[in-house]
Amino acid sequence: MFTGLSAFPLTPTDETGVDERAYARLVARLATAGVDSIGALGSTGGYAYLSREERARAARVAVEAAEGTPVLVGIGALRTAQVLALAEDAQKAGAAAVLLAPMTYQPLTDDEVFGLYEDVTRELSVPLCVYDNPRTTHVDFSDELHGRIARLPNVAAIKIPPVPGDPAAARERVAALRALVPDTVSLGVSGDWSAATGLSAGCDVWYSVLGGLFPHAALALTRAARSGDAATAAARSERLEPLWELFRRHGGLRVMSAAAVHLGLASEPNLPRPLRGLAAEDRDRLVAVLDGLDLLSSPAAPEDGDRAARDLEGA
Amino acid sequence: MFTGLSAFPLTPTDETGVDERAYARLVARLATAGVDSIGALGSTGGYAYLSREERARAARVAVEAAEGTPVLVGIGALRTAQVLALAEDAQKAGAAAVLLAPMTYQPLTDDEVFGLYEDVTRELSVPLCVYDNPRTTHVDFSDELHGRIARLPNVAAIKIPPVPGDPAAARERVAALRALVPDTVSLGVSGDWSAATGLSAGCDVWYSVLGGLFPHAALALTRAARSGDAATAAARSERLEPLWELFRRHGGLRVMSAAAVHLGLASEPNLPRPLRGLAAEDRDRLVAVLDGLDLLSSPAAPEDGDRAARDLEGA
Repeated sequence: MFTGLSAFPLTPTDETGVDERAYARLVARLATAGVDSIGALGSTGGYAYLSREERARAARVAVEAAEGTPVLVGIGALRTAQVLALAEDAQKAGAAAVLLAPMTYQPLTDDEVFGLYEDVTRELSVPLCVYDNPRTTHVDFSDELHGRIARLPNVAAIKIPPVPGDPAAARERVAALRALVPDTVSLGVSGDWSAATGLSAGCDVWYSVLGGLFPHAALALTRAARSGDAATAAARSERLEPLWELFRRHGGLRVMSAAAVHLGLASEPNLPRPLRGLAAEDRDRLVAVLDGLDLLSSPAAPEDGDRAARDLEGA
Repeated sequence: MFTGLSAFPLTPTDETGVDERAYARLVARLATAGVDSIGALGSTGGYAYLSREERARAARVAVEAAEGTPVLVGIGALRTAQVLALAEDAQKAGAAAVLLAPMTYQPLTDDEVFGLYEDVTRELSVPLCVYDNPRTTHVDFSDELHGRIARLPNVAAIKIPPVPGDPAAARERVAALRALVPDTVSLGVSGDWSAATGLSAGCDVWYSVLGGLFPHAALALTRAARSGDAATAAARSERLEPLWELFRRHGGLRVMSAAAVHLGLASEPNLPRPLRGLAAEDRDRLVAVLDGLDLLSSPAAPEDGDRAARDLEGA
């Protein structure tokens, strides 16, 4: 399951809890669009802010709405005992795999990070994807640490942060990591602006924020890169640069939160406090960017989401 | 209550939960030693790793064991709704004040950090101490942000990170912040190696890791500095430099975890996973440092803890 496009939807949440109806609709759109897997409760899915019960319910909603598309469920938490409980819940919900970032409060040593994965993989009966996201965890994985963790049982994939922008440097980066992990371990790229370069550099999968709301656009980029057409993939990515710029400035989560409202796919607010949506001027900028990309050729309504995304793919 | 020495004990915790008996004993020692306040469930108290229920129980244990010494209770969590619940629990437990760090997963904007304090202070009936700890939260408070938050109702204190080592620069740092906050707001220093400089530069209180296990040593330093004897305070701090070096290298939490075991005041392990204790060679170094400071003139036993600390004060 760790190839192609893995699409990470929002989990629309306000102070009263998760909007499960909106969440199921977001997930179902992705399955209909034909993404290769769905990443439920990733960073864009706000996993770190939800209670165990909210996460267990969201995992069940996602698996049901995915109708057979494999669902990867985020199980990260600060304490190992919590991670183990979340892993159990995810497996009971029918997760095809789990995604684990080493969340931190106290900075962790390499041995502590390794120990977390050792404790968790020992208990798993589904594959695990190592989630290397220094922006949110503040853990800097060395390649040596990746190599140690990748040899643990049930480790099937690594989700790496953005690769270098230069294609040759990106190929070197992916090759260097590939040399240190078992052949069976998939490497995947995150940081959407880095996806075309990462896929063309040999990554097996794109863990995509864009794909969580605009799956057709993300699939088109993914398929071009995976078929060896690096030029088309790069051109598709280049065209999306105004959106990537907003991702880098505000975080993909806040941008997708506002975009989901604009598409009529989530109500407002849809991020748990202390997170807030984009400020008014940033929303205006986002709407201008989306309009410039022909994402929204008609007034937003729930049923327009898929059509809008297809418009982008066709553009 | 935000003056003098605020001592932050460990919350001894293993995979089965909090060792409430050991915790009560640690807290009671601090009250007996005459600290000015006790910081329950601070960073050294592992608050970020404990469940709501564990935290509510620990708060009650601490207030009871403190026998009238004011207890400040950490209420930080990633989600505002969780913080509000923890604030309620802390107040019900009898907390004299609460301590709030802006924990992060997604990096927060200044407006989001302000919004967190706005949402929480609105609901409080006890004073709040703003906990500025960039090492664990990765939030960099600007002075302007401190000034905005300090004007919110119920904000009574700010716990700042280490001040510059140079006394004149430290005085400037404290004066600059003092100028931006109401006169009623206490400023306190954390980062134990910075305590003597911070107190002598005008901080009202030392939020102390050392004081959570060696209260007499921390009180002696605090009282020298607060009485205007900067030279004695600096000399006491200088003498502890080998310990400060270990704090900076391993984090005060891991050092105090091992020291508590060495004193017979906590069993092992006493940190929740993924946190691990010091490696064997680092424990040996700690024991050598403690011995060199005459902290342990006799084999460690629970009842030796206070005597060991008094030995240090007399040294």
